[in-house]
Amino acid sequence: MDEAAGPDDRYVVGVDFGTLSGRALVVRVADGAEVGTAVHEYRHAVMDTALTAADGRRLPADWALQDPDDYRDVLRQAVPAALAAAGVDPARVIGVGIDFTACTVLPTLADGTPLCEVPELRTRPHAWAKLWKHHAAQRQADRINALAHERGEPWIGRYGGKISAEWQYAKALQLLEEDPELYARAERWIEAADWIVWQLCGAETRNVCTAGYKGIRQDGRYPARDYLAALHPGFADFVAKLDGRLAPLGARAGGLTAQAAAWTGLPEGVAVAVGNVDAHVTAAAAQALDPGRLVAIMGTSTCHVVNGARLAEVAGMCGVVDGGISAGSWGYEAGQSGVGDIFGWYVEHAAPAGWASHEALSAAAAAQPVGAHGLIALDWWNGNRSLLVNHDLSGVLVGLTLATRPPDVYRALLESTAYGTRMIIEAFADAGVPVDEVIVAGGLTANTLLMQIYADVTRRPLGIIGSAQGPALGSAIHAAVAAGAYPDVPAASAAMGRVDRDVYRPDPERARAYDALYAEYRRLHDHFGRGGDDTLLRLRAIRNAARQAADPTPAAPAAAPLEVMA
Amino acid sequence: MDEAAGPDDRYVVGVDFGTLSGRALVVRVADGAEVGTAVHEYRHAVMDTALTAADGRRLPADWALQDPDDYRDVLRQAVPAALAAAGVDPARVIGVGIDFTACTVLPTLADGTPLCEVPELRTRPHAWAKLWKHHAAQRQADRINALAHERGEPWIGRYGGKISAEWQYAKALQLLEEDPELYARAERWIEAADWIVWQLCGAETRNVCTAGYKGIRQDGRYPARDYLAALHPGFADFVAKLDGRLAPLGARAGGLTAQAAAWTGLPEGVAVAVGNVDAHVTAAAAQALDPGRLVAIMGTSTCHVVNGARLAEVAGMCGVVDGGISAGSWGYEAGQSGVGDIFGWYVEHAAPAGWASHEALSAAAAAQPVGAHGLIALDWWNGNRSLLVNHDLSGVLVGLTLATRPPDVYRALLESTAYGTRMIIEAFADAGVPVDEVIVAGGLTANTLLMQIYADVTRRPLGIIGSAQGPALGSAIHAAVAAGAYPDVPAASAAMGRVDRDVYRPDPERARAYDALYAEYRRLHDHFGRGGDDTLLRLRAIRNAARQAADPTPAAPAAAPLEVMA
Repeated sequence: MDEAAGPDDRYVVGVDFGTLSGRALVVRVADGAEVGTAVHEYRHAVMDTALTAADGRRLPADWALQDPDDYRDVLRQAVPAALAAAGVDPARVIGVGIDFTACTVLPTLADGTPLCEVPELRTRPHAWAKLWKHHAAQRQADRINALAHERGEPWIGRYGGKISAEWQYAKALQLLEEDPELYARAERWIEAADWIVWQLCGAETRNVCTAGYKGIRQDGRYPARDYLAALHPGFADFVAKLDGRLAPLGARAGGLTAQAAAWTGLPEGVAVAVGNVDAHVTAAAAQALDPGRLVAIMGTSTCHVVNGARLAEVAGMCGVVDGGISAGSWGYEAGQSGVGDIFGWYVEHAAPAGWASHEALSAAAAAQPVGAHGLIALDWWNGNRSLLVNHDLSGVLVGLTLATRPPDVYRALLESTAYGTRMIIEAFADAGVPVDEVIVAGGLTANTLLMQIYADVTRRPLGIIGSAQGPALGSAIHAAVAAGAYPDVPAASAAMGRVDRDVYRPDPERARAYDALYAEYRRLHDHFGRGGDDTLLRLRAIRNAARQAADPTPAAPAAAPLEVMA
Repeated sequence: MDEAAGPDDRYVVGVDFGTLSGRALVVRVADGAEVGTAVHEYRHAVMDTALTAADGRRLPADWALQDPDDYRDVLRQAVPAALAAAGVDPARVIGVGIDFTACTVLPTLADGTPLCEVPELRTRPHAWAKLWKHHAAQRQADRINALAHERGEPWIGRYGGKISAEWQYAKALQLLEEDPELYARAERWIEAADWIVWQLCGAETRNVCTAGYKGIRQDGRYPARDYLAALHPGFADFVAKLDGRLAPLGARAGGLTAQAAAWTGLPEGVAVAVGNVDAHVTAAAAQALDPGRLVAIMGTSTCHVVNGARLAEVAGMCGVVDGGISAGSWGYEAGQSGVGDIFGWYVEHAAPAGWASHEALSAAAAAQPVGAHGLIALDWWNGNRSLLVNHDLSGVLVGLTLATRPPDVYRALLESTAYGTRMIIEAFADAGVPVDEVIVAGGLTANTLLMQIYADVTRRPLGIIGSAQGPALGSAIHAAVAAGAYPDVPAASAAMGRVDRDVYRPDPERARAYDALYAEYRRLHDHFGRGGDDTLLRLRAIRNAARQAADPTPAAPAAAPLEVMA
């Protein structure tokens, strides 16, 4: 490259930490051009049946752990590989930004050492990072919610009336109750997003996004001590494990340490942006920071983010946070726990020979008129995040006949997730948060049938992000702001983001046909999810009891003998 | 064989006409020994998408037709083949008896010629035999039932309050309304069971079993003319197409004609027993004519028959007929529209590679504790015969998760049919018709997991018929009675029938676990089937409208141009 690099030759690196891998992307600051990328798969992937990174012990149902050193490997492997692929001189890189799945959270010592890296704690399941989809803390979430409503906690309405079992408090309370000794050892309880930034710049920060959405920080305060004490006496001082320097999105957390420079091949001291969430950085990448433009990041699950001009409380949403997407707006978030995961489950575990591909199923399903398969599904294979916030719910499929064929079921599954999205959009609209168009990002944008179904079902025009690496591009945009190349995230988004608007428009006839099916979805949704009959919750309890009786894996992993390592 | 044949060397032939094939069985009169058998598959199988026996024209949804000449082929092919396999001198055969699926019904001329064999009528779908599972007359059944209740017709309670769309009246009314000219040409409207006996002995008879269960004949009368006229003015004289010589089960319909002797290789003039239904003859084969012993004939669908000492009316049963199973008792019948069909659907159209066999799925499913899969299915893939009598219902599967695997779904399907059977048993018991044990016949007896599930779910001991050819053996028993070898069906059953009692006993712990799951099944059953919410019926209407709009196959086949053949 040219040694005399001007402003047009500066680059930033965005690193997107996903569920199974991390991706580094090298981006030109001037125009957002993506010049090189590399992916590194986590060595231990998701530990959901056994603690494979330690002694391989079995894990109870609904657990999902990760090894934080797998995250460091992304810095060590993917960043240098992306730089090499780009052919960019690292000296021209002015900043690095990251985004992460959330709420993925881990216990550490005061210096940031994960408890799972303390030798004598490695075989304690609670010492590891709990991935967003760790769903074993529903009991704790139920109590958190009941008590918040009972006491009228001011923040509960900001989370649609329900704190998720996926978030910081439920997961921490599970840790406390199942392994109190380990809870005491945890000096910090930190989002993986903030932990990896700490690894990069050597300084602990807490980004306002996860502090707000996952850490229940509202109007400058965390939940009160007496509320926490009422949950569990040992939980009274939990906030001490969270509290610390808060930083807005796009801020500079610090400079790259010598160690992190060695890992990544980047110059020591370049700007490290504060951490952020994959979905939230994507709004910047998709030029969708204006109110009314809802971004749906559709992958294994879907996360929805939309800025609103005013504060509103939406029942069943994940949360509203001041500056949670970009400073100056109220950031709203909602989500669907299972989307691509459900389609993947179908192809991998339910489609007969000859039909085990998304392409074949989509092609056959696309030929069907709306409603011809006679099926409706409730898309709760992985529980329901919005609007019901209950991970003990499960999937439902009605209308099956001897004539039902794989493309019928597959199409019904695609549609069920679109109905779930419409429920969310309508809940926002009903609460005064308008949604005028939907911008889609993520791997599922490749399925044109799915995209058209979403346009038809939601009756909204659908735009598609102009990058295949939305989150990594969004992180790079935040890195550029942290490095001072742009005054704020909206300015950087305008220069570096990309979107194709109105790619799919609702077809009036199909939209009308879907209205009738959506009405049936709603009725099923309310029957199974809003107290019509709690069949699914009772079935889950029966299932768990049957499994526990047949194979008593320790329910509280701390009860397992403590293995002291040399 | 020995030329000097004594009473121990006499034989009878039973012929069982199933859904896809007919089977002939040569049986020794003295002890019921099965000495030879042969099967003939119907050339045109089930015509459910196209009229393949004629011009191949498309058929509307839910139709199921057969070619009656395929039935004659069973006489021409399977009977001689069975005799050959047995090595029995046909001269030693003293009688032939048949059983048939029901209600399988066809329109004929006064001499028994099927309308589909009248050259100019061959391309008219309504001219062919309507198989039991022809489900396109639900609209007519609905009106038959509504009017019967409105007028307080005395017979409606004998059919559990509902006449099925599968039976003679709904199918005939569909014929009248969709092809009135053909209805007028139909001088007789006759069960296939009685039609094939007519082919054998040259004389038309009506057996009391189908006349009662499918023909609404109660207390010596068919429905009244003014009721029929109120259904449709053209339907007023419908009974004239049915009325004729009635004969009790085990009676002699006539002697074998010369033509039928030529087809079968049997001696002209041997006794031909009156027709009967596959399930009902099986009770005799399984030595289950005593009250309290319910016979479940489990194949693609299940038919339940049980004798009762007294008359009772059971909501949702198929019917109660005096002498309908054997003379002197009230014969009760109920049924499940889809059983083996559902398991077959799963293996053929829904099981992924590596799981597409009943053996593999059963073996893996058998290892599971009760309730561990977390699923409940409603077994309505082919509608619901008892207790809901509605073929527009469809299957439901709840509790699906990303961890759901093929053996989970398969086991849930097996269980769902057991729950359906328990619903029926409890309905009988509640109405004062006790069911103390269940005797199972049919192909599904080979699945030991399924049998144990039925014992555990129903909390009844399960016996297994001692013959793999229950219906054909039962027909042979009736032939022996018709030939005068035994004084009545119970005597012949005692000598020639076979059963292994108490093969499966309910396990108390599993039965307790199933009680909880059955409670969930009942709630789903009542929600979707008893007016909680008619989701499934609306979905069916949406499906049918969508298909009709996309591909307007003639709803009334008579509207198709009449093709006159030379």
